Amino acid sequence: MKFKKVLVYNIDRSKSLDLISWKKIESLGNKIVFLPKDNPRFRKELADTDCLLVAFATSVDKQDLDSAPQLKYIGVAATAFGKIDTTHAKKKGIIVCNLKGYSTESVAEFIIAVLLENIRGLEEGKTRGRSGSYSEAGISAFEIKDKIFGIIGLGDIGRRVAEIAQGFGADVRYWSRNRKTDYEEKGVTYEDLDRLVEEADYLSINLAQTKDTEKIFNQSRFQKLKSGAVVINTCPMELIDIDALEQRLKKEDIIFILDHSDEMRESDLKKLSKYENCIIYPPMAYISKEAGENRKRIFIENIEAFLKGKPQNVVN
Amino acid sequence: MKFKKVLVYNIDRSKSLDLISWKKIESLGNKIVFLPKDNPRFRKELADTDCLLVAFATSVDKQDLDSAPQLKYIGVAATAFGKIDTTHAKKKGIIVCNLKGYSTESVAEFIIAVLLENIRGLEEGKTRGRSGSYSEAGISAFEIKDKIFGIIGLGDIGRRVAEIAQGFGADVRYWSRNRKTDYEEKGVTYEDLDRLVEEADYLSINLAQTKDTEKIFNQSRFQKLKSGAVVINTCPMELIDIDALEQRLKKEDIIFILDHSDEMRESDLKKLSKYENCIIYPPMAYISKEAGENRKRIFIENIEAFLKGKPQNVVN
Repeated sequence: MKFKKVLVYNIDRSKSLDLISWKKIESLGNKIVFLPKDNPRFRKELADTDCLLVAFATSVDKQDLDSAPQLKYIGVAATAFGKIDTTHAKKKGIIVCNLKGYSTESVAEFIIAVLLENIRGLEEGKTRGRSGSYSEAGISAFEIKDKIFGIIGLGDIGRRVAEIAQGFGADVRYWSRNRKTDYEEKGVTYEDLDRLVEEADYLSINLAQTKDTEKIFNQSRFQKLKSGAVVINTCPMELIDIDALEQRLKKEDIIFILDHSDEMRESDLKKLSKYENCIIYPPMAYISKEAGENRKRIFIENIEAFLKGKPQNVVN
Repeated sequence: MKFKKVLVYNIDRSKSLDLISWKKIESLGNKIVFLPKDNPRFRKELADTDCLLVAFATSVDKQDLDSAPQLKYIGVAATAFGKIDTTHAKKKGIIVCNLKGYSTESVAEFIIAVLLENIRGLEEGKTRGRSGSYSEAGISAFEIKDKIFGIIGLGDIGRRVAEIAQGFGADVRYWSRNRKTDYEEKGVTYEDLDRLVEEADYLSINLAQTKDTEKIFNQSRFQKLKSGAVVINTCPMELIDIDALEQRLKKEDIIFILDHSDEMRESDLKKLSKYENCIIYPPMAYISKEAGENRKRIFIENIEAFLKGKPQNVVN
């Protein structure tokens, strides 16, 4: 089986996938049309489209869906799909698939990488070495072993962080909306959120953004953090009360490391980048050669699975 | 029981241990004498010394030992004790104790830290973030999971590196002079040294320096390395044929990361520091707050254990 028309909307053809992947996708439809973002022809093109492929953070609203009477499948080239009206799509029998898990390992390893980079003073060491000064005097460093390693949100990424941290011999504890007894059996201890925030030496935030989790890191929780704590957020900054974070950063006794998301507000970035103890990376946690390969593979496999009548990674 | 006289030789009193530790050590002898390095009074002071405490890389030769008829105990404030004539000490019934294992965890975590720092492009990311440029374009990164992680030498440190790498989901393989079947049961595969060098994506050198291991990384082995391999050496550079390393570095297809030891020759340092793909850190792998605490604790516990007739960490 093939699609009648594949509409590729708001996906950078050269950056997002390689030539071989596009050839493969072309072979799964009788026709393929590429449209850049905000192209006025979008709804017109939707009229006879049965397969729509969109990039991260592309809006597909109720009216778009209602303009696509033949649409059966929406493939999102990302994990997040918040700007697609998946409920309305479901009502219309349109299946929406994402790239679940393609960057799980990449993000989990990144969290450990930025933590170690910070607690081992690697930047200072590298700078000294490069300038020909090989003294270790004054370099302060900390280990992961035996530390309380808190994980807020034990989804796919949180679980991998837990497993890696256990390899280091950390005392891994978690808070999650639902208890995960399988992980508790592996020695990952459940804690009340407030208590975990209070106890953790290292804290990784791995929560999905929902109405319940927005600004979950509020003033009271930032005040509870242990002096010397290192907090790593690779999730949307909507989980964070920025003013409360700023207030705690001013005390200069915690480190906050974040993987800046494309959606972060300019004003928040400006506010936080003033603080030396707030380390802002470009959005690179999800970037690895392996994640890139998973991305291509899963994007295509999702389409193939749908055509075979066995859709996978369905989000609605 | 107490010592009659504790001679502290070539140990920086303020840098090496804290006041509380010195107070404790003072309480273990009737008398304590501090002598700086190369002090001409050293042999004279040895005449009535029964406990000698020395720093890393302090020479205690046959003649020194023969000048110390009452000497029963030598405590080394380090792991290495190569400059002490331990064989002659043994003949004279003098027990030599070191700080075995005090920095095992610190070094093992450092190895993973510098590897991740390199393969995740953290320096580039941090620099961009700090300059307000949050683009991730062109950042290339690699994961540890599913990679062949070679460990050369499966002693205390090598074993911890193996455990941590397994937490990441790496395919961990080792070469060691003796097979370690307990680790093979845990899924760490034994390989012939040449084959391991050829196969490994990441390679950690964790061998003791002996006549057999000097320049074990010779030209043939450096040529065998996979293109893209990352090699980490936290052991003496005597294990490495520097010219062979330089020759491979020139191809620009491997990364060599080293923790510069105090004993490294200036000319070798100069040679290697020319290469961007040779990353030289100050000797900081062994430095962590936790290792510092272990150091003090084990140094004192060794003396106490000897006085109780149950010496520990004896090296001769």
